[in-house]
Amino acid sequence: MVRQMKSFLFLFIVLVLSETVMSARKPSKSQSKPCKNFVLYYHDIMFGVDDVQNATSAAVTNPPGLGNFKFGKLVIFDDPVTIDKNYQSEPVARAQGFYFYDMKNDYNAWFSYTLVFNSTQHKGTLNIMGADLMMEKTRDLSVVGGTGDFFMSRGIVTFETDTFEGAKYFRVKMDIKLYDCY
Amino acid sequence: MVRQMKSFLFLFIVLVLSETVMSARKPSKSQSKPCKNFVLYYHDIMFGVDDVQNATSAAVTNPPGLGNFKFGKLVIFDDPVTIDKNYQSEPVARAQGFYFYDMKNDYNAWFSYTLVFNSTQHKGTLNIMGADLMMEKTRDLSVVGGTGDFFMSRGIVTFETDTFEGAKYFRVKMDIKLYDCY
Amino acid sequence: MVRQMKSFLFLFIVLVLSETVMSARKPSKSQSKPCKNFVLYYHDIMFGVDDVQNATSAAVTNPPGLGNFKFGKLVIFDDPVTIDKNYQSEPVARAQGFYFYDMKNDYNAWFSYTLVFNSTQHKGTLNIMGADLMMEKTRDLSVVGGTGDFFMSRGIVTFETDTFEGAKYFRVKMDIKLYDCY
Repeated sequence: MVRQMKSFLFLFIVLVLSETVMSARKPSKSQSKPCKNFVLYYHDIMFGVDDVQNATSAAVTNPPGLGNFKFGKLVIFDDPVTIDKNYQSEPVARAQGFYFYDMKNDYNAWFSYTLVFNSTQHKGTLNIMGADLMMEKTRDLSVVGGTGDFFMSRGIVTFETDTFEGAKYFRVKMDIKLYDCY
Repeated sequence: MVRQMKSFLFLFIVLVLSETVMSARKPSKSQSKPCKNFVLYYHDIMFGVDDVQNATSAAVTNPPGLGNFKFGKLVIFDDPVTIDKNYQSEPVARAQGFYFYDMKNDYNAWFSYTLVFNSTQHKGTLNIMGADLMMEKTRDLSVVGGTGDFFMSRGIVTFETDTFEGAKYFRVKMDIKLYDCY
Repeated sequence: MVRQMKSFLFLFIVLVLSETVMSARKPSKSQSKPCKNFVLYYHDIMFGVDDVQNATSAAVTNPPGLGNFKFGKLVIFDDPVTIDKNYQSEPVARAQGFYFYDMKNDYNAWFSYTLVFNSTQHKGTLNIMGADLMMEKTRDLSVVGGTGDFFMSRGIVTFETDTFEGAKYFRVKMDIKLYDCY
């Protein structure tokens, strides 16, 4: 009887404890497995002179001449974000924020922006910042916060340049991995 | 006796576990109940030409002409933050940072700033960023970090435009909800 | 026998629970003891007219005239970061980002940047933002995210101005304390 009870209690403790540990570990932060993961495409369509219709971003400063790679050019954007590579597809989000070029001997950039979701599927925002080390095939930025459906989220966005058409258009594949989900 | 002991142990386990769960869940991140919550008013008093005395913010770029809603106008500020709606009340904090307009067919903005507290009541900072979707009655930005009394804090700031007096002055109600407190 | 079992179970519960609490508390966020702590020196070498060779930062806006302390001057940088005070030492990281001055009656700044590590010792980034209250001997900014070796890190960077040589060069001691390590 005592042995039986011992076994029962042992099982009980183990079961309850596992649940405790799991519940205490929420949000999970294992590097190997995000709690949410999705890929989006970001389309930057630069304002020139007479293309207000199409443009979704615009430079607001002139590079001051430190090297030949646009160092100091700051661009503000309200860019469409889609689930495929076609910039004319129905956007699933807007990317609102800015980037600038910041290297004197190569192209290199720095981003800070918000992904704004406002569809039947997702409502909320993800706030993102980090270096866009353009010479690397992929580079990681930080998701530093979220609101709405992404309440308090944190994670990583992996950038990969998908195409680059002169100064007018570029497309970046953004692989969004959230490790803090609530 | 064995039955008695069983009951005692059960109670003991339940009690200790509840405490464990609670302690493990610190900082609490329940969406329903912030660990700190306070409302502040942010006053933006734009620099014109000859009002250095009153002004607390200034535009540093000119909109490049993408639409008619100030797209690309970037404003740097050191604005007073008060607990009531009067911008001449004794500030409880300063808001230091910047915002810019970023939409071509409506007013829309993006903020990144620090709330600097330096009073007998609070010393420390809260770092905030996010989209200010001005067409929405309320919109959420992220508190992404804190220092001093707000060490390592995270949370949400809900913006609500309180008044708008042309290009010279606007006031935003900021409802600050912290879900990570240490 | 029952008493023995009681003692055994009590010990067992206490041991397992302590482990649970510790495991649940990872990452540790005690204010007193960071999980990583290191000091770096940041060197800002401002672009003038003909010093492209040395310069690592450049102003991209002109102060609009709100006071006499450079209010509204925005500087973009790709600055070397070293472990000693010599700006010509081999950098252990780059600091890529921007700062601006934001006070009308004294010098005061605001920073947002990424520390980019790319050595055999460390690969990854730390993303940082906050007010640089220059009138204070030391001031705290937030580490709001990290990637690579600093995956999902959070913490505090304490700034201390180390030297200031006119408008051409300044050096800041950055004491980096991470409280979230994975």
